[in-house]
Amino acid sequence: MKRKVTLKQIAKELDVSISTVSKSLRDSHEISEDTRLKVQAFAKLYNYKPNNIALSLKNKKTKTIGIIIPEIVHHFFATVISGIEQVANEMGYNVIVCLSNESFDKEVINMEMLATGSTDGFIMSLSKETQQKKDFHHIQEVINQGMPVVLFDRITNDVLCDKVIIDDQMAAYEAVDYLVGLDFKEIALVTTVDYVSVGKLRTDGYINALNDHNIPVRDELIVKIEDIDHCEEPIAALLESQRPKAIFAVNELFAVTCIKQANKIGIRVPEDLSVIGFTDGIISQYSSPSITTVSQNGARMGGKAAKMLIDRLELDDENEQYTTQLIETELVLRESTPTL
Amino acid sequence: MKRKVTLKQIAKELDVSISTVSKSLRDSHEISEDTRLKVQAFAKLYNYKPNNIALSLKNKKTKTIGIIIPEIVHHFFATVISGIEQVANEMGYNVIVCLSNESFDKEVINMEMLATGSTDGFIMSLSKETQQKKDFHHIQEVINQGMPVVLFDRITNDVLCDKVIIDDQMAAYEAVDYLVGLDFKEIALVTTVDYVSVGKLRTDGYINALNDHNIPVRDELIVKIEDIDHCEEPIAALLESQRPKAIFAVNELFAVTCIKQANKIGIRVPEDLSVIGFTDGIISQYSSPSITTVSQNGARMGGKAAKMLIDRLELDDENEQYTTQLIETELVLRESTPTL
Repeated sequence: MKRKVTLKQIAKELDVSISTVSKSLRDSHEISEDTRLKVQAFAKLYNYKPNNIALSLKNKKTKTIGIIIPEIVHHFFATVISGIEQVANEMGYNVIVCLSNESFDKEVINMEMLATGSTDGFIMSLSKETQQKKDFHHIQEVINQGMPVVLFDRITNDVLCDKVIIDDQMAAYEAVDYLVGLDFKEIALVTTVDYVSVGKLRTDGYINALNDHNIPVRDELIVKIEDIDHCEEPIAALLESQRPKAIFAVNELFAVTCIKQANKIGIRVPEDLSVIGFTDGIISQYSSPSITTVSQNGARMGGKAAKMLIDRLELDDENEQYTTQLIETELVLRESTPTL
Repeated sequence: MKRKVTLKQIAKELDVSISTVSKSLRDSHEISEDTRLKVQAFAKLYNYKPNNIALSLKNKKTKTIGIIIPEIVHHFFATVISGIEQVANEMGYNVIVCLSNESFDKEVINMEMLATGSTDGFIMSLSKETQQKKDFHHIQEVINQGMPVVLFDRITNDVLCDKVIIDDQMAAYEAVDYLVGLDFKEIALVTTVDYVSVGKLRTDGYINALNDHNIPVRDELIVKIEDIDHCEEPIAALLESQRPKAIFAVNELFAVTCIKQANKIGIRVPEDLSVIGFTDGIISQYSSPSITTVSQNGARMGGKAAKMLIDRLELDDENEQYTTQLIETELVLRESTPTL
């Protein structure tokens, strides 16, 4: 029984990274000649089929779209998938979903798997690790082979392709501007570390809004969370030490954690503290008080991404310019901010 | 450019259902000879490739597992996928996810797509429509072709294969038994319509628990929700007309809706009303009060399903008996029931 050798197996066998194998097979000069030749010889010996098989299959349409997302236990990504599904089905396409689990290697492996004949194109949101490494060769490669890619939400400017994003910076600006309009001066920010592109943009929006209102940006009011599963402690520390009157949180888990931690130490929401979150998921809806939030319109974003990909698949003109579409956000007012 | 014709296209062209096409191609006597011949002729004309291609590919392992689930905006299914991913990755397998969106046709189409060379086997939970129709020929077919299938959560006894379930009846029994132990006699049930197998089993568990405690089962305390997106009204009606002191709800959306509706009419939880839900998702955790619930251990269920499937894929003995594994549940006590 002859098994097809995979990138992962070659990497393991030669004790190099998956990225090194992938680059060596494309003769990248980032890799030493020694390593390149070793990888190429090994791949040949074990009959490795790189995914430029996709090239020869270009005319054999699968009518299937591959989606690669960082994680699935996340309402936003789930709603994006729903949006993609709906438009894709209406236009006669099937959808396959793979998860990177925030891992660069898994993202590369999934792309390789789906590119070899399973799908016509990709809709994807980058893993945290990919954003950190800034290594996008796997995406560039499938594009070079003629498979269109649409990036959404977590994107990069280093790859030329169609993109769908919300204007994270403007959305954050509007949320903070709304808090300033409620007469708050000391507005805290609970955000992610900077390499997460959307976290960085929302942080920038917060800073711009404060600047435009001549409110000083104070570092002690900004908390950057490294690990979302351990956000209670830094948030509790912020509440205890700064007692902010308003918080803008860049996702809904941070927002609901602000409320829970505030409750624990007798700070009432919205009487003593106003909270605005980001992402209109089920937590924002069902928490008590329910949470005022920037709605990302995940389903609309997914639908738009599907439309862009399918249009490009069915378009013969390859010179068409790439576009970046902005999805509108809206502030959904609920119980965690005072009624005007 | 020659495109592969799909089941769906044949069905549309001949104005028959996808199931009719699928059955006609396997010469099923459920379909009239006239229709069968018409479908077969059409399929031949358009060079339809049925998925018994999988048979000839049996020795060409893809090292990929196909998952088909009813919906993705659902924390339980998301946690099951996480569990499958983790075990599959540890054992060197990739995972592909497709959604049926509760549609029988989409389930058939997805299976056909994945069975033609993309995956070695399936882990799936049945769509509502499939359970209603009791039509499982698509599953039986891939099993007959030698691709193993593991069913989880929403299963059927009509297909012989490996299964992973929680003991829904026992889990519901224990939840209701717990409420009886708190001295409640009038315990309402908010459940699904009977054709959803897990809803039916949880309803049976509720009835058995009441019977064993000699508490009469009263129809006016049982609400069967047809459409989960419109559960507010029937739940509000139950609360208004019956003023139950305790409610057992068969999922967490029903449970949180009970709490929200109770709050609206001044019924306090847990002081005036105790609520136990099912599925330990983020709603149960973050709602206020947080919700006492039967934890389904989705990740453990997914991990077990992956292990069963991979063991069967790597086992040569085809006579191995099929098994049904039970996943243990536990009652997670939170704020929606009184402290003992």
